[in-house]
Amino acid sequence: MKIIGEKINGTRKRVAQAIAERDVAFIQDLAKRQADAGAAWLDVNAGTHPSREADDLIWLIENIQAVTETPLCLDSANPAALGVAIKAVNKTPMINSISGEPNRLEGILPIAAANNCPVIALAMDDKGIPKTMEDRMAVIRRVVAETRRQGLPDSNLYFDPLAMTISTDIQSANIAIGVMRAVRAEVPEAHLTCGLSNISFGLPARSYVNRVFITLAMQAGLDSAILDPLDQEMKAAIITTELVLGHDRHCLGYTRAFRAGVFGK
Amino acid sequence: MKIIGEKINGTRKRVAQAIAERDVAFIQDLAKRQADAGAAWLDVNAGTHPSREADDLIWLIENIQAVTETPLCLDSANPAALGVAIKAVNKTPMINSISGEPNRLEGILPIAAANNCPVIALAMDDKGIPKTMEDRMAVIRRVVAETRRQGLPDSNLYFDPLAMTISTDIQSANIAIGVMRAVRAEVPEAHLTCGLSNISFGLPARSYVNRVFITLAMQAGLDSAILDPLDQEMKAAIITTELVLGHDRHCLGYTRAFRAGVFGK
Repeated sequence: MKIIGEKINGTRKRVAQAIAERDVAFIQDLAKRQADAGAAWLDVNAGTHPSREADDLIWLIENIQAVTETPLCLDSANPAALGVAIKAVNKTPMINSISGEPNRLEGILPIAAANNCPVIALAMDDKGIPKTMEDRMAVIRRVVAETRRQGLPDSNLYFDPLAMTISTDIQSANIAIGVMRAVRAEVPEAHLTCGLSNISFGLPARSYVNRVFITLAMQAGLDSAILDPLDQEMKAAIITTELVLGHDRHCLGYTRAFRAGVFGK
Repeated sequence: MKIIGEKINGTRKRVAQAIAERDVAFIQDLAKRQADAGAAWLDVNAGTHPSREADDLIWLIENIQAVTETPLCLDSANPAALGVAIKAVNKTPMINSISGEPNRLEGILPIAAANNCPVIALAMDDKGIPKTMEDRMAVIRRVVAETRRQGLPDSNLYFDPLAMTISTDIQSANIAIGVMRAVRAEVPEAHLTCGLSNISFGLPARSYVNRVFITLAMQAGLDSAILDPLDQEMKAAIITTELVLGHDRHCLGYTRAFRAGVFGK
């Protein structure tokens, strides 16, 4: 299970402020702590100011790379900013994200394909997020046809089935998990990823919902996730799920995490 | 998800002492607290003294029934003791357990069939616990043939796939979960149950392993479990899993549990 550290995101107020004020120490601290916690990539989102996004991304990239070798995940829907920013990275970055939306397939995907980047692909298109599993799979099939046409290997794809809010649709988790199983069956080389910001929205004790969801999603084949790598309870849930699913030979990952204090009790 | 409260078990030292000393208050307190916590059945195990088991069971049954109407789960491998004890219960009890062992199919099953009791059926026989999922299913098929022959409806069966120790076989959970899925497919009217005493044996932070296992098992169709109904973290995991699996319409069970303080945070 690979973690994409979510914390350097300019749509969050405190991060937006740090970007605006060029607060290097704040950003570098977020980067270091996520890298030390085991993140496989660090998401880098500069916020949504079209005129400033390229400059802000480059500032973020340069300052983050000064303190960690963990690869970055460039998070932008802006092909112009992304095309400039990608020249500033030291290691091949992940790109977040493409989808079935034509502007992403025409604007973002060519950058990913030209640089052979891993890329997050959302199960949505210009009509929005399909309600059913079958309609999300239809989008995914169109995306795969296009990524193959543009020469990006299936193994570079990280499909996000888009876990929606359970409190407004009790089937939300089942739909996302159904998409995961279907992707595993139809595009076996592709990876899966998921964010957890929506699934538990509007519910109390959200961390319980997020942890149970990730456990069930991992059984369905989820092999990466966009989350806070500093969340110890989430980390404990992921490590325990890898153990119970039989992925942790000799229980080494589990017992090491225990000795490192990941488990609260 | 129905809970079989596990705490009144004479193989535990403190309970054995209470039985030996005829400590009514201790047993009634265990019964009341488990019933109040929502147990659907209370397991009643008098320990393993053949000469005393019937008397001890009757003493337990009478004192427990004096304080709760929750049905009992008579836990004995002794047909003679069970045949006497079952006359003392007010409500149809569950019986724990039959298996592929001939002495259980010949001694215990007829008592269950004659009284139309729900019965726990272990996926093992006189040769022990089969290592593979397929061999456990072979035992289960033989048990089903015999329960049908003796006139017990499939819907009275609660199959326990026997979750073994992960620390000695990393596939233990996968095997148990595989058996659960196979039972659901082959004997759709039957229920599933499971104890959690073995799965995490030998590991630190056992409650994490138990909770992740029950979440994955519930997705595979587990609809009852033998456990401590007073374990708040386990209860929170079960209620959250029911929510995420889409079984909790309008999130009512979840939000009620939150207001009742089941979630620690």
